[in-house]
Amino acid sequence: MRCEVIAIGTELLLGIIVDSNSAWIGEQLALSGIDSFFQVKVGDNFGRIEASICQALERSDAVICCGGLGPTQDDITRDVIAQVMGVGMQRDTAIADKIRRIFEARGRVMSQNNLRQADVPIGARPIPQMPGTAPGLVCPVGAKVIYAVPGVPSEMREMMLGTILPDLRQRAGQSAVIRSRVLRTWGMSESGLAEVLAERMVELDRLGNPTIAYQASGIDGIKVRLVAKCKDAATAAQVLNAEEALIRRLLGDVIFGIDEQSMEVAVLTALKAKGMTLAVAEQVTGGLLAARLTAVDPELATFRGARIASLAGEEGTAGLTARAAAAADAARSEFGSSVGAAAIAGPARQAGGPVTAPVVLAARIGDRRQHEEIILPADRGRLRDFAVISLLNMLRKALAA
Amino acid sequence: MRCEVIAIGTELLLGIIVDSNSAWIGEQLALSGIDSFFQVKVGDNFGRIEASICQALERSDAVICCGGLGPTQDDITRDVIAQVMGVGMQRDTAIADKIRRIFEARGRVMSQNNLRQADVPIGARPIPQMPGTAPGLVCPVGAKVIYAVPGVPSEMREMMLGTILPDLRQRAGQSAVIRSRVLRTWGMSESGLAEVLAERMVELDRLGNPTIAYQASGIDGIKVRLVAKCKDAATAAQVLNAEEALIRRLLGDVIFGIDEQSMEVAVLTALKAKGMTLAVAEQVTGGLLAARLTAVDPELATFRGARIASLAGEEGTAGLTARAAAAADAARSEFGSSVGAAAIAGPARQAGGPVTAPVVLAARIGDRRQHEEIILPADRGRLRDFAVISLLNMLRKALAA
Repeated sequence: MRCEVIAIGTELLLGIIVDSNSAWIGEQLALSGIDSFFQVKVGDNFGRIEASICQALERSDAVICCGGLGPTQDDITRDVIAQVMGVGMQRDTAIADKIRRIFEARGRVMSQNNLRQADVPIGARPIPQMPGTAPGLVCPVGAKVIYAVPGVPSEMREMMLGTILPDLRQRAGQSAVIRSRVLRTWGMSESGLAEVLAERMVELDRLGNPTIAYQASGIDGIKVRLVAKCKDAATAAQVLNAEEALIRRLLGDVIFGIDEQSMEVAVLTALKAKGMTLAVAEQVTGGLLAARLTAVDPELATFRGARIASLAGEEGTAGLTARAAAAADAARSEFGSSVGAAAIAGPARQAGGPVTAPVVLAARIGDRRQHEEIILPADRGRLRDFAVISLLNMLRKALAA
Repeated sequence: MRCEVIAIGTELLLGIIVDSNSAWIGEQLALSGIDSFFQVKVGDNFGRIEASICQALERSDAVICCGGLGPTQDDITRDVIAQVMGVGMQRDTAIADKIRRIFEARGRVMSQNNLRQADVPIGARPIPQMPGTAPGLVCPVGAKVIYAVPGVPSEMREMMLGTILPDLRQRAGQSAVIRSRVLRTWGMSESGLAEVLAERMVELDRLGNPTIAYQASGIDGIKVRLVAKCKDAATAAQVLNAEEALIRRLLGDVIFGIDEQSMEVAVLTALKAKGMTLAVAEQVTGGLLAARLTAVDPELATFRGARIASLAGEEGTAGLTARAAAAADAARSEFGSSVGAAAIAGPARQAGGPVTAPVVLAARIGDRRQHEEIILPADRGRLRDFAVISLLNMLRKALAA
């Protein structure tokens, strides 16, 4: 089963918008065991959209058209699909009513143009998921199929997960259920992970299920993705649970979370479980640490506060360590939290290789003091990012100890 | 002149990497007056890359292949291009030496595989810009041309700006120089801008040069992009200067910067010019304001510091305003700065329409106090982002007054 993706919109070609939809769709297709060999971006031009769809239908079994379903004159995906299908358009009264109600609920006036979104090529069926005013479409063309989804990512995703992926799997005759789980790691290189897991990888190659892949993700660490293909969801969950348990035994505490659990979620969850609270002093991280923590805990229930200041003073390992420890203590008493933490960078230096800066991470957890010196790349962006994630990781491990 | 872009790499199709290179290339092509009607992603597969390049050469004058120039076995862009050109490969000794020297300088051992990167299709010429180990290529095919650039964004950009765009413009017979300038605005809707500039737009339609386009960019505001096409760079600069001056007279202080100047750059520049310093108290913005300011001023020379805390207290406009003003004052005295600022959000509420939250922005500039209440969408991400940009904008305008 092959499926191509066509992203439609002149603004994509002009670079005004980066097409991240195709990447997400590609990932979902891969997880469903469906091949995607080509992904195309094309502008709002009838002839070129038509040529792209026809070519995709020639070399693949299915096409997902993303974008061009809006109410304005340059939204022509519906019309091109009708042309490719060789059919006319019909207004779907149920959709038209739904669009009217959306406008009413928002207290806005609907122009007649908006009803163009209710026009459906004859023989196509609307996708039941419809979070916005643009309906998605399933359009059979002989034994093949064209899907149309809006370019708004959240709307596209809902339709993909709710209708298109199940439909594709059914067409592929796949009764199998595919489930994935991401184990998120920090503190070990990709080759290090591969070494520890080498023996298990050989076994899995023989077993064929589940599969394991690595994905380096910058300051989000290295993701270890497990994919299980089973006869039903319950079996897939069992397979993933067993594999996760096995890999956790091998990798230990380099795994900080699964799926969408970020490092800050891990730290805040551990703190909450212990009935503890956190405050931080930021120098090198400049507010980024607080921004990440408040994104998860906006009410400042567990993360109590931060102070961003220059924290100047003595340099060298001893000087940095003393300042970082004092800053962590001060944050703890200023905000009345059980844990205080700080990261302080020393001046950048170069000895032959790339420019680096020493960073001391310090934490005060109850009566316990802890610190760690790391060497980071000195360019400002990476220095900040890596200091944030390293301090969170130190806290995570200290809280687990 | 038409140019297509082919992004090469299975990891792009699988969604492991989002292809942002094509968008950047598309923008650069548009600025150079070169049409780009199709952009394609294809995996590391000989036949499919070949088919994509041949199709692109049929319907366009030039193709830019991005990616697949690395040293490993799945990097086959060079080989496919040689096949399309109908030529063999030749090792370029100058490039081979350069690659050897790069490895030596990094103190790393070079494997023989790395020298594959020095293989050049006969008749192609290497692109002189070569910041990494992957050389770019200019490969003539009859009157048309295939360019190959690495997928590493910084290397790709250097080659595009240094060689490919000038080459394309020359092939297009464009002796004209194209320059653009972005006027960045905040505080007026796109339709509002269009209304104020309507008369000038009609004039420019008649004159044909420069052109103006709007680009809504979320919390980066709405960008007004001027593009001038002139006989030389000096004339283009004159045209842009004159147009910018004219538009500044029409739009006034909604313009906060040009090109890459962000709102925080505008505020920090204004403070520095007046010999003033800034400190902030963050509640709703949760560290994001400090993170943006420290990204520009990492040494905390002008931005002196921030305190992130819950700042709970009385609600309602009066309560919020009193708390915000007190927090701004406190930040100013805590960090000894000349300016203090704060943003405090009240509880979310819904009255028929979408859920919103009231936010009070407050500033203390010397002896002067200022505040403003705004209503923002209550979802956490937008609430934070809009509060940050709105507070910075209030400071910018207050400092200009």
